Amino acid sequence: MKLVYVVPGPMNDTEAARRGGLLKEWAAPHVDVDIVTVSEGPASIESMYEEFLSIPATAKLIYQLEQEGYDAAILGCAGDPGLDAYREITTTLRVVGPAASGYHTAALLGHRFSILTVTDSTIPSCYELVQKAALTHKLASVKAVNIPVLELANDRAATLNKLVEIGKREVENSGADTLVLGCMSMGFLNVAEDMQEILGIPVINPAKNALKIAEALVGANYTHSKKAYMIPPKLASGKIKSLDELLVTK
Amino acid sequence: MKLVYVVPGPMNDTEAARRGGLLKEWAAPHVDVDIVTVSEGPASIESMYEEFLSIPATAKLIYQLEQEGYDAAILGCAGDPGLDAYREITTTLRVVGPAASGYHTAALLGHRFSILTVTDSTIPSCYELVQKAALTHKLASVKAVNIPVLELANDRAATLNKLVEIGKREVENSGADTLVLGCMSMGFLNVAEDMQEILGIPVINPAKNALKIAEALVGANYTHSKKAYMIPPKLASGKIKSLDELLVTK
Amino acid sequence: MKLVYVVPGPMNDTEAARRGGLLKEWAAPHVDVDIVTVSEGPASIESMYEEFLSIPATAKLIYQLEQEGYDAAILGCAGDPGLDAYREITTTLRVVGPAASGYHTAALLGHRFSILTVTDSTIPSCYELVQKAALTHKLASVKAVNIPVLELANDRAATLNKLVEIGKREVENSGADTLVLGCMSMGFLNVAEDMQEILGIPVINPAKNALKIAEALVGANYTHSKKAYMIPPKLASGKIKSLDELLVTK
Amino acid sequence: MKLVYVVPGPMNDTEAARRGGLLKEWAAPHVDVDIVTVSEGPASIESMYEEFLSIPATAKLIYQLEQEGYDAAILGCAGDPGLDAYREITTTLRVVGPAASGYHTAALLGHRFSILTVTDSTIPSCYELVQKAALTHKLASVKAVNIPVLELANDRAATLNKLVEIGKREVENSGADTLVLGCMSMGFLNVAEDMQEILGIPVINPAKNALKIAEALVGANYTHSKKAYMIPPKLASGKIKSLDELLVTK
Amino acid sequence: MKLVYVVPGPMNDTEAARRGGLLKEWAAPHVDVDIVTVSEGPASIESMYEEFLSIPATAKLIYQLEQEGYDAAILGCAGDPGLDAYREITTTLRVVGPAASGYHTAALLGHRFSILTVTDSTIPSCYELVQKAALTHKLASVKAVNIPVLELANDRAATLNKLVEIGKREVENSGADTLVLGCMSMGFLNVAEDMQEILGIPVINPAKNALKIAEALVGANYTHSKKAYMIPPKLASGKIKSLDELLVTK
Amino acid sequence: MKLVYVVPGPMNDTEAARRGGLLKEWAAPHVDVDIVTVSEGPASIESMYEEFLSIPATAKLIYQLEQEGYDAAILGCAGDPGLDAYREITTTLRVVGPAASGYHTAALLGHRFSILTVTDSTIPSCYELVQKAALTHKLASVKAVNIPVLELANDRAATLNKLVEIGKREVENSGADTLVLGCMSMGFLNVAEDMQEILGIPVINPAKNALKIAEALVGANYTHSKKAYMIPPKLASGKIKSLDELLVTK
Repeated sequence: MKLVYVVPGPMNDTEAARRGGLLKEWAAPHVDVDIVTVSEGPASIESMYEEFLSIPATAKLIYQLEQEGYDAAILGCAGDPGLDAYREITTTLRVVGPAASGYHTAALLGHRFSILTVTDSTIPSCYELVQKAALTHKLASVKAVNIPVLELANDRAATLNKLVEIGKREVENSGADTLVLGCMSMGFLNVAEDMQEILGIPVINPAKNALKIAEALVGANYTHSKKAYMIPPKLASGKIKSLDELLVTK
Repeated sequence: MKLVYVVPGPMNDTEAARRGGLLKEWAAPHVDVDIVTVSEGPASIESMYEEFLSIPATAKLIYQLEQEGYDAAILGCAGDPGLDAYREITTTLRVVGPAASGYHTAALLGHRFSILTVTDSTIPSCYELVQKAALTHKLASVKAVNIPVLELANDRAATLNKLVEIGKREVENSGADTLVLGCMSMGFLNVAEDMQEILGIPVINPAKNALKIAEALVGANYTHSKKAYMIPPKLASGKIKSLDELLVTK
Repeated sequence: MKLVYVVPGPMNDTEAARRGGLLKEWAAPHVDVDIVTVSEGPASIESMYEEFLSIPATAKLIYQLEQEGYDAAILGCAGDPGLDAYREITTTLRVVGPAASGYHTAALLGHRFSILTVTDSTIPSCYELVQKAALTHKLASVKAVNIPVLELANDRAATLNKLVEIGKREVENSGADTLVLGCMSMGFLNVAEDMQEILGIPVINPAKNALKIAEALVGANYTHSKKAYMIPPKLASGKIKSLDELLVTK
Repeated sequence: MKLVYVVPGPMNDTEAARRGGLLKEWAAPHVDVDIVTVSEGPASIESMYEEFLSIPATAKLIYQLEQEGYDAAILGCAGDPGLDAYREITTTLRVVGPAASGYHTAALLGHRFSILTVTDSTIPSCYELVQKAALTHKLASVKAVNIPVLELANDRAATLNKLVEIGKREVENSGADTLVLGCMSMGFLNVAEDMQEILGIPVINPAKNALKIAEALVGANYTHSKKAYMIPPKLASGKIKSLDELLVTK
Repeated sequence: MKLVYVVPGPMNDTEAARRGGLLKEWAAPHVDVDIVTVSEGPASIESMYEEFLSIPATAKLIYQLEQEGYDAAILGCAGDPGLDAYREITTTLRVVGPAASGYHTAALLGHRFSILTVTDSTIPSCYELVQKAALTHKLASVKAVNIPVLELANDRAATLNKLVEIGKREVENSGADTLVLGCMSMGFLNVAEDMQEILGIPVINPAKNALKIAEALVGANYTHSKKAYMIPPKLASGKIKSLDELLVTK
Repeated sequence: MKLVYVVPGPMNDTEAARRGGLLKEWAAPHVDVDIVTVSEGPASIESMYEEFLSIPATAKLIYQLEQEGYDAAILGCAGDPGLDAYREITTTLRVVGPAASGYHTAALLGHRFSILTVTDSTIPSCYELVQKAALTHKLASVKAVNIPVLELANDRAATLNKLVEIGKREVENSGADTLVLGCMSMGFLNVAEDMQEILGIPVINPAKNALKIAEALVGANYTHSKKAYMIPPKLASGKIKSLDELLVTK
C-alpha cells in the first residue's frame, strides 16, 4: 500500500522530513507513506482565506499523485480545504480529509466530542465542518487555544498544558467524552498521546487518524463515490482535455 | 448606494455588458450598480473544482473593490464560492452570496422550496449550501436541467420549457411551493419571471434577488459580523502587511 | 412602491406619527410608506394571548389595504401574529413578518444570533418562531430585558444600557455573533444603531429590517406562495362571498 | 373528574349533542365530560384564518370554564388554535390540544406516522404543528382527503373509503406504520376504529385520544407548566384586573 | 381494564407489595393493576449491561402475561430496556415504556424538560432514549443525583432535597420548565408530587405516568403498530413454533 | 495486533471456519484475527428479540476475551446488539460495532447512503441505528431483500442479483451514492465486492469494514471513551467483585 501525505503549502525541509518520519512510525508495517509539499501556498492555515488559497496548487499536485500510482492521499490540513474538488478530479486515488475522518472516528468512540482548535478565527469553520459531516448532534463544543499555528511547537509543554486544561474544562462543562485536535501541527506535536494518558479519554490526533483511516479505506478497497463527487462536466464530456484548460484567461 | 457585481472568472464584454444592463434595470432608482469580471478563472462553474479555482483572483478583486468605496459586492456565482473568505478580508464592503440569499428569501415566501440547478455534478453542493444555511427542513428537492452553463442561453425557449416542466413536477411530487434557480446564468436569462407567470408560485432569480438583498443590507446599514468572519490572524496581528503576503513560495 | 406599516392594535396619534416619521426616514427614496393602526386590540403584545387578540381586526384591515393597492404590508409586531392568516387572504399584497425577516437577515450576516426580547413571557414564543423559520441551528440564545413594552421608551438610556449589557454577555457566553431585537417598540427606539456602534456586531432592528425586506420583495416582484398560503376553501370555492361570512353566530 | 370539550365556534344543537354523547361513551366510568360551544366563530376550520378567528371568544369561554371548576378542557379543533394562549390564562384547568396529543400518542405506538387531514389548505399547518411538537423525525407524510369539513359526514362510507385508500398508500409509499386523523369531525365520524380493523395499524382518533390524554393528565395530577405558559405580564403584575382589559379600543 | 406492572428483576416481597399498593392507589377506579417480578435479573439497573441482562427472562414473562389476558404491561424500568423486543412478541398486550411515555408527556406540558436520573453512568442512555423518542429539541438537560438506585429510599428527605436542588438549578441554568424523573425507584418514592409543590412546575413520576398512559392507550383501544414491531420472521413464517426455539444451543 | 471476531450465537464449525478464513484474508499482514462463537443464542438475528437474546452470553465471552489479551473484538452482528454494554465492561479491548462503523465509513465516502438489509422486520432498527450514529441527514433509504438470513447463501447469484437490482433502484430513486450491507451474512457472501464492480459506487461490507476499522483504532491506539461507557457502578464501587454477581436470583 502506497500512501502520500500532502502539505498544502510550503514547509521547510527539516520539518517536512520530521513529519514524514512520524508518519512512517505510525504507519502499519506493510504501508509506505511519503510526504510531499506544495511549493506555493499559505505559510499556515488559520482562516478560510488561507484555506482557499491553498487549493489550486494542491489540486494539481493531487491530480499528479494519482498518475504516480498512489493508493490514497492524506490532506495535510484539518480544515479539509478543497476535499470535494480533489475527489472530483481523482478516481483511483482516495483523498482523505483529516477533519471528517477525525470527527467520524470520535463519533465511533463516544457520545459527544469537543474540538480543540488553534485560533478563534477557525471556530466557525469547525462548526461548519461538523455540520457538513452531519455530526452536530455529537458535538459538545469547539474551543481555541489561541496559539498561532506557527508557534504551537515553540513551547511544546505550554501547548500541551493549555490543551489539557481546556480539555478538562470541556469534559466538565460541555459533557465531552472524547476530544479531537483541530490542526495538523497539533497532530505532529504528538500531544494527543500525552493528553490521552493525562485525561483518560480518547484524543484524536488528526494526522495519525487520517493515516489509519486511509489504510482502512485502501485495505477494504473503498474509494469515494463518483456519484457524490462527479468529474467536472467539461472534462467528463471531453470538451477539454486537461485540468489546466479549466482555468482560462481573458 | 454603490454596488458591484463580481463575475468570478473571464466573461466576454458583450455578455458582461448585457448582464450589467439587466442589473441596472433591476436596481432601485437610487442605486448604482457596476459589473466587473475577473480576468483569470473558470469559463463557467459546474463543479467544486471550478468553484475553488475562481477564488484566489476574485478575492484580490473584492479586496480592491472595498478600497474603491463600494457598499456591497454581489458574488456572481450561485454556489457562493469563497464567500467566507471574502467576508474575512472585508469590513465595510458587504459581500452577498446569491445561494444563501436566495434560500433565505425562499424561506420567507413559502414553506418548502426546490432548487433547479444546471448539472447533476452540482447537486451535492446545493445540498451542502442549504445545510450551511441551516434550511434543510425547508428544502423540498434539488433537481438539475442538465444543460451545461455555457449552453443555457443557446435556446432560451427550450431552457424555459425544461425549467417549467421540472418545476411543475417538483410542486406535485415534492410538495415544493417555491422555486430557486441555482445558477446565475439562469438568472440572467430572465426566465424566473416567466416561470412565475406560468407556474403561479414564486421563482427566485438568484441574480436579481442578491441585488435586492444587497440593497436591503446596505439600506439598513448592516454588515456581515466580524465575530463570524474574523480577519486572518496574520493580518490582524500585523505580522504581515498585505493580503499578498499570505501567499508564500518556497 | 407603496408600503404600509400596520400597528395591530390601538396606538396614540403622536407615537404613531413618530413611528411613521422614522419609517419615512428609513425608506428608500422611491418608496412611500404609510402607517395605520387598528382601533381595537391589545395595548401592547407581551403574551400569546395578546398576539391572538390582535389578529381578527388586523386581518380585516390588511384585507382592505390590499384593495387600496398597497404593494406590501409590514406587520407591526415582532411575534408575527397572524402572518399565515394574512397571507391566506391576500394575493398581491405581500405581508412581511418582522420576526421571520429578522431571523433570516441575521442568518445571512453571521453564524449564530441571539434574540433580545422584552419579557420572559415571550421567550417561548421566540423559540417557536425560530423553529418555524427552521433556523434553530443558527440560534445562540433568547434573553429578555424584562422591561414591559410600554415602559421601554421611558428611560431610553437605561434600556440601551441593559440591551448592551445582555448583548455583550451573550456574545461571550453563547457565542452569538449577531443580535436581533425581539420587539417593534425596541426597533422604534432606534437603539439597534447605537448597539452596533458599541458592540461592533450587526444588531437587527426588526422595524427597519422588515421595511427593507418589504422593499426587496416588492423590488424583485416576489409574493408569498399561494401554494403555501392557500385561500380559505370556503372563499376559494365561492361558497361564501366575503371574509365577513367566515365568522358566523349561532 | 370533570372534563369539558370546547367546540371553538357555533355548532347546531343536534350535532353538539351527538358529539357529547360519543364523548360520554368514550370516557372512563369515573369521568364526567360536558360539551360546550362558542356562539361566535367559524362554521368549521379549514384555514389558518379560521383558526385565528376562533380564538378570542374561545379564550373567554375557557377562562370561565376554569372558574366553574373543570379539571381539563379539550380543545375541539385538531389544529390546536390558541392552545398557548389558553394555557397562559389558566392555572388549574389543563387545556389539551388534540394535534399535539395525537402526534405524541402516535409516536408512542410506532416509528413513523402519517397525518390524514381534510383539505390541502391545512397541510402546511400540519407540518408546522408537527415541527412545534418536535416530532418531524417521526413524520412519514401529510395528506388531504380534500373533502370539506362540513361534508365529511354526508357520505360516511365514501369518507371512510377515501381514508382507507390514502392510508394504505401512505403505509406502502411513505413507510408509515401509524395514522393520525387531522380533524375533529373525522374523529366524531368514528372512522378511526373501522380503519384500524381494515388496515391493521393504529389510527389515532384525535377526539377520543385527546379525551384519554386529558384523563391521564388529570389522573396523574399534572398541569401545563406555568414556566412555559406564563400569565400575561399586565395581568400578573396587577396592572389590569381582568382579561377583558387586555383588549382596548382607541 | 387489567394492567400489570413488570419488575424486570428480583425484588423482595415487601417492596413489591408496597409498589403494588401505590399502583392500586394511582389507578383509575375501573382499573385493576397487578405487579409481578422476574425471579432472575439485575438487583437494580444502573448500566446498559444490567438493562440487557434483564431482558431475556422479562421477555418470557411478558409473553406469558399476554396469554393471561392482560390489556397492558408497564415496563418497570425507566430505561425502557427491551421495549422493542417485547412489542415484537406481543399483539394484544400493549407494552408501555416509562421513559418514552414520560418524555412525551413532558413534551405535552411545556417547552423544555430536564431529566433527573440516578447515576452518571445512565446519563448517556438517557440522551439516547430522548433521541429515540425524537425529542432532542425539547430536552433542556440530563443530570444525575448520583445516589445508587438501591439507596434512594434510605433517606427519602435527603433524596428529595437533592432532587429539588438540582431541579431548581436546571430551571435557572438550562431553561427547563418541566422535569422528568429518570428512575422507577424515584417514582415509587412519591417525591415527584412533593417536588411539584415546591418547584411549581410539572414533575413527571415515571411510574404513575406510565400507568396513566397505559390506561389511556387501553381506553382508546390503541395497540403498538405491528408494522413497526413485526413478529420475528422465524415465528411469523411458522418455521418455529415457540419463543423458546429462538434460543438454540450448539 | 490481535483481533477477534465474535459470532453472538451458535454457528456450525464449517461456516465459522470459512468466515475465519475470509477474515484472515482480509486482515492486514501484521494482524492476527481469530473467530469465536457463543454456544447459546439465536440461530440468526432478524428481530430485536433475537438481538437482545444474544447479549448475556456474548457479554461474558467478550469480558473473557479482554482477559485473554485481545486488542479489539468485532461484534458479529450488523445490528450492533449489546455494543454499549460490552463497552461498559471492557477497558483495553476495543469493541467495534459493524453497523456504526459501516455508517460512518459510508459517510466518509459520499453524501447519501442506503442500507440494504435482510428482512422488513429489521428496517426500523436500521433507522434507529442510523439515528444513534447521528447520521440521519446522510441516510437516503433502508430497504430489505426479504431473504431470511439463513437462506442468503443458498443461492448466492440470486442474492447478488436482488442486491444489485435494489441498489440500482435506490441510486436512482433515493439519490444514494453509497450502499451499506446491513447483515454480516451478506458480508461473508463477499457480494459487496461484486456489487462495487457492477454498480460503480462504494458498497460497504460490514464484516470487512469492521475489521479495517478495528485495525485503525488499535493502530492509532484509541479505545472507546470510559466517560461515555462507564463501568457499571456496582462493579466500579467494589460492591460486587465479578460480572456474574450483577445477575441475582430471588
